[in-house]
Amino acid sequence: MNKDNRRWWGWGTLDQTYDLSERPGFYPFLTDELGLTGEGRGPQAELERITLPASRLSADDLHALSAIIGEEHLSAEHRARVTHAVGKSYPDLMRLRLGQLERAPDVVVWPEGEEKVAALVALAVRRNWAIVPYGGGSSVTGGLAALGERPTISLNLARLNQMMSVDTVSHTATVQAGILGPALESALNDEGLTLGHFPQSFEFSSLGGWIATRAAGQQSLRYGKIEEMVEWLRMVTPQGTLETRHVPASAAGPSIKDMLIGSEGAFGVITQATMRLRPLPAARDYRGLLFRSYADGVAAIRTMMQGDRPPAMARLSDVAETRAYLAMSPPSRGRTARLTQAIGKRLMNRRGIALRGACIMILGCEGDEQSVPEDMDAALTVCAAHGAFHLGRSPGEAWYGERFALPYLRDILLDRGVLVDTLETATTWDNLLPLYDAVGQAIAEAIEAEGVKPLVMCHVSHAYSDGASLYYTFLAKQVEGREIAQWEFIKRKATEAIMQHGGTLSHHHGVGHDHRPWLEQEHGPLGLAALRALKRAFDPHGVMNPGKLLEE
Amino acid sequence: MNKDNRRWWGWGTLDQTYDLSERPGFYPFLTDELGLTGEGRGPQAELERITLPASRLSADDLHALSAIIGEEHLSAEHRARVTHAVGKSYPDLMRLRLGQLERAPDVVVWPEGEEKVAALVALAVRRNWAIVPYGGGSSVTGGLAALGERPTISLNLARLNQMMSVDTVSHTATVQAGILGPALESALNDEGLTLGHFPQSFEFSSLGGWIATRAAGQQSLRYGKIEEMVEWLRMVTPQGTLETRHVPASAAGPSIKDMLIGSEGAFGVITQATMRLRPLPAARDYRGLLFRSYADGVAAIRTMMQGDRPPAMARLSDVAETRAYLAMSPPSRGRTARLTQAIGKRLMNRRGIALRGACIMILGCEGDEQSVPEDMDAALTVCAAHGAFHLGRSPGEAWYGERFALPYLRDILLDRGVLVDTLETATTWDNLLPLYDAVGQAIAEAIEAEGVKPLVMCHVSHAYSDGASLYYTFLAKQVEGREIAQWEFIKRKATEAIMQHGGTLSHHHGVGHDHRPWLEQEHGPLGLAALRALKRAFDPHGVMNPGKLLEE
Repeated sequence: MNKDNRRWWGWGTLDQTYDLSERPGFYPFLTDELGLTGEGRGPQAELERITLPASRLSADDLHALSAIIGEEHLSAEHRARVTHAVGKSYPDLMRLRLGQLERAPDVVVWPEGEEKVAALVALAVRRNWAIVPYGGGSSVTGGLAALGERPTISLNLARLNQMMSVDTVSHTATVQAGILGPALESALNDEGLTLGHFPQSFEFSSLGGWIATRAAGQQSLRYGKIEEMVEWLRMVTPQGTLETRHVPASAAGPSIKDMLIGSEGAFGVITQATMRLRPLPAARDYRGLLFRSYADGVAAIRTMMQGDRPPAMARLSDVAETRAYLAMSPPSRGRTARLTQAIGKRLMNRRGIALRGACIMILGCEGDEQSVPEDMDAALTVCAAHGAFHLGRSPGEAWYGERFALPYLRDILLDRGVLVDTLETATTWDNLLPLYDAVGQAIAEAIEAEGVKPLVMCHVSHAYSDGASLYYTFLAKQVEGREIAQWEFIKRKATEAIMQHGGTLSHHHGVGHDHRPWLEQEHGPLGLAALRALKRAFDPHGVMNPGKLLEE
Repeated sequence: MNKDNRRWWGWGTLDQTYDLSERPGFYPFLTDELGLTGEGRGPQAELERITLPASRLSADDLHALSAIIGEEHLSAEHRARVTHAVGKSYPDLMRLRLGQLERAPDVVVWPEGEEKVAALVALAVRRNWAIVPYGGGSSVTGGLAALGERPTISLNLARLNQMMSVDTVSHTATVQAGILGPALESALNDEGLTLGHFPQSFEFSSLGGWIATRAAGQQSLRYGKIEEMVEWLRMVTPQGTLETRHVPASAAGPSIKDMLIGSEGAFGVITQATMRLRPLPAARDYRGLLFRSYADGVAAIRTMMQGDRPPAMARLSDVAETRAYLAMSPPSRGRTARLTQAIGKRLMNRRGIALRGACIMILGCEGDEQSVPEDMDAALTVCAAHGAFHLGRSPGEAWYGERFALPYLRDILLDRGVLVDTLETATTWDNLLPLYDAVGQAIAEAIEAEGVKPLVMCHVSHAYSDGASLYYTFLAKQVEGREIAQWEFIKRKATEAIMQHGGTLSHHHGVGHDHRPWLEQEHGPLGLAALRALKRAFDPHGVMNPGKLLEE
C-alpha cells in the first residue's frame, strides 16, 4: 500500500469516499433529525497547524535506534509523529482537526523481523522509554496515545507482514502480526482458505491489532471472534520472548495464550500468530428482512443462535438505524423497481409491518454448496416464525458490497460539523433489551444536555447462544469550541450506563486509554490485581504501552 | 448418592461392575497379549491395613473448624482421610491396594455454601494450613494429594450442589460447583436443556472439577470443551472472592475467566459457574464404521471437522484398540446375527478391509430432528470417501449404552495383577500420526524395559478443525514389588515423548502433581512466570492446593 495515499486525518485512502450524491435522501434526513442548518462546516485538519512538543530523544538516542534498524526505518519528522499520535476514534480525529495534539511519540520506527523488535524493546528498557505498538492504526479507544513523561517510541509493525507458512493439512497459517487484512486474505485465498475475520476496519487493521484488542468480524457467527481463531502466538516482552504451546487444545493449566490475547500492547509486542482457517466458502447468500419490532428481530437471532443451523451473520438494526438505512438507500431506478417496491409495501401492510416502525435485518449464510441453502432455509424459517417480511437478496447484496465503506461517511460528516461516533457492548439475552434501552437513553440524554438534538441508532451484530453485542452509532451537531468535552460527556454517560446495566465495557474494540477508568468495575479489584500481576511479570518496568489497559 | 455405596478403593459404586462373563473372549485375548499365566492376583485393598501419619491438627484446630461448619460436617477419621488422600489414577489405586499412603489430609470438611468456603479459606490462611479442593474425587493426575509439611484440609464440595437458576431465555444455568454430572443433567433436562458434557467420569465428577481441570466430554465435537461452556464463574481465593463479568463475550482486556479455568484449585476454590447450555437433542444417531488404516480414519475425522457439518462425536480406535474392542464384544447370538456377520465379512473383504488390520470408528450425531440426518449423511459421505465400511447402528448403540462402564473393568484387571492406565495429549493434524507413533512406541518400550509384554492402544476422540487428541490405554503384567516404580517409569517415558514430539502435556486431564515437572517445557519459563504471578496475586501464602499445577 502506498502510505501517501492514506488520509492521515481520516479513514482509508484518498481514492475512496462515500458518495452522498448517490444517496440524495440521506443528508436531508440527517439535517432534519439533528436540526442542522445548511451544509455546516466543522474544523478542517491542517498538518502544519498541528503543534507538537519537541522530541525528548537526543541525537545519541536516535543513533542507538538507527544502529538497530537503520536510519531509513525511523522518523522523528512532524508528519510521522502526528499520524502515529492518534488512532481513528472521533476524539482522535477531532484532535487532528482542532490542532490539539498535546502528546505524540518522539520517534516512529519500522523494524523488520522479530529480532529487531526484541532489540528495540531491550533498548527501551535500558533507556527507560515507553513503547507503543502500532499495527494498522485504527484503534478507537485511544490505544495509540503517547502517554506519560518518558520518551515514547511508536513501533510500527508494517514491515512484519510476511506469511510465514500455510498448513493446508491442519488448516492454519503462521503469519507475522503486522500484516493487514487484504494482504492476509489474498494469500490465504490463494490456498482456498480464509480467516473469515472481516471487521469494518478490515482494509486498514492488522492481525496483531485484532489479537491485541480481541476483535470481531462481521461474520463472527460463523468464524468466531479473533480469540477463537488464534492457535498459537509469539510475543516479545521486556522479560524475553514468549511462545505458547502449538496445539489445538490443552488442559495444561490456565491458558497462557488467553492471557496474551487482548493485552493491547501492555505486556509486549505480538509478532507472530498461527491462525485457524476455514475453507474459502463456495457459496454466500445474503438477504434482507424486516421485523415488526426490535424485540421480534432479537428473538429471531436468539432462536437461530440456539439452534443447530446458525447463520454466518445476522445484523439487526433498530427502528432509528433502519430509518437511516432507508434514507441512505439509492433511489429505486426504473419502472420494475418501483413496482416491486409498491407490491412489497402492500404485502408488508398485510403482515402488519409499517415501514416507519420496522427493523431491518441483513442475514447471511456462507459455506459449502450444500450447507448454505440448508442454513438459509433454517434461518428464514425462524425469521418467518417471528413475523419477518423477506425482502429478498438485493438488500443483502447491497450491504455486502458496501460493508467496509461506512467509515468514509464519517469524514464527510466531520467536515460538516457533525459529531458521529460508535460504541459497543454485549450482554446475555435476558438482559439485551433492558440494556439496549438504558444505553440508548443515556446517550440521547447526554447529547441533549449540551442543547443539541440526538440521533441514536443501534444494531445487534455479534450473537452467541447466550447473548449478543449491541453496537450504537450516535450523531449530533458539534458544539463549537467544546467538541472534545461534548464527546467526553456522552462517552462517560454511555459507559456508566453500560456498566450499571450489566454490559461489558467493550465487546470488540478493547480498553485502550478511553475505557480504562471502568476496568476495575468490569473485573473487580481481584481481577484487576490479576492483570497487574501479569503486567509485572512481563513488563516490570512499565515500558509497554503505558496508560493503556492498565494505569501508567 | 449413598456414599457408603462408593468403592473407596476403585471406581464407581458397589452395585455396578463390568461383567466379563458376558464377554468370554476378552480375558483370553488379554492373557495372550500380555503373556499372563492363569487368573492372576494383584494386591487387594484393605482399609485397616493402610497406615496414615497422625493428624497434624490440634483439638483447638478442629474446634475452630467446627465453629465454622459444625462438627458433623468434618471428619478426621481413618476412612475419610484415606478416601480423600487419592484420586482415581492407577498409582493412586495401587497405593491403596499396597497400603502405601505416605500422606493424607489431616481432616475432611464438607461446607455448605460459599460463605463457609470463604471462612474456611480465611482460617487456613490465618493458621498456615493447606487446602485441597475435592469435587468428585476422580482426578487422574494426583490433583488431590496432600503434599507438603503443613496441616492439610480436604475441602469436599459435595454440599455445594445446588442449581441456583436456569435461564431458559439465555440458555444458561448458574450452578454450585460441587454438583455431580447426573444431578446436573437431570435438573437441566427437566427444562429441555443439556450441558452436553459427558466425560467418561460423568457419574462421579463435579462441575467444579471439570472447570478446574479443563475437561472434555465424549461429544466435545458438538458441545465443546468445558472452557467453552463457562460463561461466568466465582472463585473464593485467599485474597477474596472473585467473580468474572457476566457477559457472553468481551474485549475488556485479557480474559480473567480463562485465567481461572484450569487453575486446579491452586488459585482458589471455584464455587459457582454459569454454564452455556444447548437444547436437549431431539435426535441421536450413533454408528460404527471400519477403516482400512488409522491414517484413513484420521483423514476422515479431519475432513469432517474442516467441513460445515461436523458430527457430535468421532471416536477412532487404532488397530490394537480395535482388536481389543472386538475381543470385548459379546458373542453374536442366533442365526440371523451370525449370518449378518458373515455377509459383512465378505463385503469388507471386497472393499479390501481385513478385520485384523482395521480401525473402528464410533460416529455420533446429535441435534434436532432435521439436522441429525443431514449431519449423519454428510459424515458418512466423508467416511465413504476415505474407504470406510459402514457397520450400521448396532456398534454405535452398543458403545453409547456402555459409555461410562469401562472404568469398572480397570478394578477387575487390578484385582488380577494387571497394570492398566490411560494418558492423553493433543496436537495439530500435520503432527498427529508422527506423535501417535512416537508416544505409542515410547510406552511399549518402557513396558518392555521391565521385562513384561505391552498392550498399547490409542483412539482419537476430541477433534478440532486444526488438530485432535490422542488417548492411550496401556496394559501390562504388574511387576510385583515394583508396581509404582513400574508405572512411574512408563509415565515418564510417555510424557517425555509427548513433550519431545510436539504434543500437549494434557488435553483434558490436567496437570495435578503427576504432570507438574513438564509444565515449564509446555509453557516456557515466561509462561510459567505468568502462572506464578497469578498464584501470588490470588494466593500469596501458598495455601491453595500446594504442589499441584505449580511447585509448593
